[in-house]
Amino acid sequence: MGEFPADSVGLVEPQTLHVTEPLALDCGKQLDEYELVYETYGQLNADRSNAILICHALSGSHHAAGYHADTPDGKPGWWDKCIGPGKPLDTNRFFVVCPANLGGYKGSTGPASAHPKTGRPYGPDFPVITVGDWVRSQAVLREHLGIEQWAVVAGGSLGGMQVMQWAIEYPERLKHALVIAAAPRLSAQNIAFNEIARQAIVTDPEFHGGRYAEHGVVPRRGLMLARMLGHITYLSDEAMRAKFGRDLRDGRLNYGFDVEFQVESYLRHQGQSFVERFDANTYLLMTKALDYFDPAGLHDDNLQAAFAPATARFLVISFTSDWRFSPERSREIVDALVDAGKQVSYAEIVSELGHDEFLLDLPQYTHTLRAYLERVAREVNP
Amino acid sequence: MGEFPADSVGLVEPQTLHVTEPLALDCGKQLDEYELVYETYGQLNADRSNAILICHALSGSHHAAGYHADTPDGKPGWWDKCIGPGKPLDTNRFFVVCPANLGGYKGSTGPASAHPKTGRPYGPDFPVITVGDWVRSQAVLREHLGIEQWAVVAGGSLGGMQVMQWAIEYPERLKHALVIAAAPRLSAQNIAFNEIARQAIVTDPEFHGGRYAEHGVVPRRGLMLARMLGHITYLSDEAMRAKFGRDLRDGRLNYGFDVEFQVESYLRHQGQSFVERFDANTYLLMTKALDYFDPAGLHDDNLQAAFAPATARFLVISFTSDWRFSPERSREIVDALVDAGKQVSYAEIVSELGHDEFLLDLPQYTHTLRAYLERVAREVNP
Repeated sequence: MGEFPADSVGLVEPQTLHVTEPLALDCGKQLDEYELVYETYGQLNADRSNAILICHALSGSHHAAGYHADTPDGKPGWWDKCIGPGKPLDTNRFFVVCPANLGGYKGSTGPASAHPKTGRPYGPDFPVITVGDWVRSQAVLREHLGIEQWAVVAGGSLGGMQVMQWAIEYPERLKHALVIAAAPRLSAQNIAFNEIARQAIVTDPEFHGGRYAEHGVVPRRGLMLARMLGHITYLSDEAMRAKFGRDLRDGRLNYGFDVEFQVESYLRHQGQSFVERFDANTYLLMTKALDYFDPAGLHDDNLQAAFAPATARFLVISFTSDWRFSPERSREIVDALVDAGKQVSYAEIVSELGHDEFLLDLPQYTHTLRAYLERVAREVNP
Repeated sequence: MGEFPADSVGLVEPQTLHVTEPLALDCGKQLDEYELVYETYGQLNADRSNAILICHALSGSHHAAGYHADTPDGKPGWWDKCIGPGKPLDTNRFFVVCPANLGGYKGSTGPASAHPKTGRPYGPDFPVITVGDWVRSQAVLREHLGIEQWAVVAGGSLGGMQVMQWAIEYPERLKHALVIAAAPRLSAQNIAFNEIARQAIVTDPEFHGGRYAEHGVVPRRGLMLARMLGHITYLSDEAMRAKFGRDLRDGRLNYGFDVEFQVESYLRHQGQSFVERFDANTYLLMTKALDYFDPAGLHDDNLQAAFAPATARFLVISFTSDWRFSPERSREIVDALVDAGKQVSYAEIVSELGHDEFLLDLPQYTHTLRAYLERVAREVNP
């Protein structure tokens, strides 16, 4: 592992849990059997009290940190900036677990997996899945790993929604809840962005009602547009200005419809490379899970009431430049927790890059994570 | 005309100016001949001093007020709330002129018009057009109408950009410049939205490189997505919340990919009805004109220097809920005008609905317009 940075978890290999106990889903259907693919970093301590569960966001996976032997681009996992020896989620002290979500594009059972009955890909027959379904499947993994209680459940964006769900549904199973760059539910505008992304995908003639794999094609155009649109919401206006401004790719206007501004080039590149790795049916499922998440909705829109069962201590983090889930949305969470009498710390990180900041390593952000998790480490490893 | 409201200009008929003098365009090409279609409301006074030029925005046309005999939906022109007898743009006092922009979807010569040489639609061969090109064609109309000087040139959004161009390029030809809900140039994020809309259109298999008319089809999916995306930027997050919240169309989740939330229904409807009336090539041209507008860019990014030639008095109006062109963008205009020693009034209207507010009749907005224009009316009709 000498080839990896000293603060990297190094080479990692996913593990697979095959579950044969059916999982009842919120939509009314069930998965008779399924696989959960996950990675772990660090060592579980003797009393199994140092485990951190990481919940991933829309385009994430089980590969949160370190390197795969066959990674062609040499890029580490999606939260590698924060997970590793000496990093905020310190693998010298914590046992970090990151499962891939059901319905995802790789790893755990999803639309591209073979249906156990037919042997063909689920495709559009993969059931609509919710944040609650994910958390219930992660609870199966918890049991399998023999972890009575997570020291921490942590996640950003859609991952933060899973953290809230854990705290509400399994209060005794986590001591700390880290909710980063999240919202208690989507706004109408958030749903609108998701709906346009979905429409881009389902109206692509190569979508074939979700059975594109059977036709040997991919709804490239739709998935590309969806990802381009996503990137507008992940980056702040200020970040786009700082990154691209009105810079012209060729240094002059060409009065045509090819790429002219650098931002166009960036978006097309992001869209095109996403198509190579992601699955269109998964994109639909992930956006639906986002749309549906609404714990307050089950309590007459009273978020305080929704949080009533929670016993975890919360750390809520937002970023000032995040307009997808603005600090205002995090403060809704914090206010409801405070009103419900819960223990909550809140950090609003001054930032420039937008929603994606939660994946990066802004000093004030990593310092906040580090300080909080050092306290947790002292609790669990006396 | 008894069938129309008393403050309506009533039944109107477009007029056509056929221009045979070639128009040299910024892109280096020229239009050998072209038609400008326009409407007028009110009467030109004896000394021709009471004329207001209206510049329209992306999806506008020459039909700004009143009714067409053959309007199937019975809807008046796009700015009917502000133009008419006794309305802020009072047709009892002003002679209001609204031309359709070149490259537009109806009226003046555009991609759907027959090329004079071939007799077939221009389609993608219609040259890329700029705000400057529009203003130069509007100057031809001014000459034709025998108006030495507009009392006012007014416009919202992309229309406001044309107003700025008039003030810079033909300072002696207007006394007042009304710049509403505009920006001195697009931000990288604005360009990003436009680029995704364009990609949605050009990647639609029925776009056929812009020659869809020859194939007897329309790139419906792409144009629909473009319009849905536009609507996200026209409405504020708050407006969407107030209008739709998380209301479910069927009152319950159906765990599928049909419309679930009201906002989805709204967007799909907006997208679908737009396809019926708008032209995809025009959408591409309009977004490019927006992207290119950048008077400061010709002066080392110094907007104050760009405004140096202007002699008009300015009224700049912004809306607090507008996130497409926020008040901050209007203040850039105002600051540059002040620094350049120009006369400028600025009104920031407290609003909820977003960018589209400029088409509506919020009392503080219409009051501001009315007060300003009454002063203008006293100047021109002593």
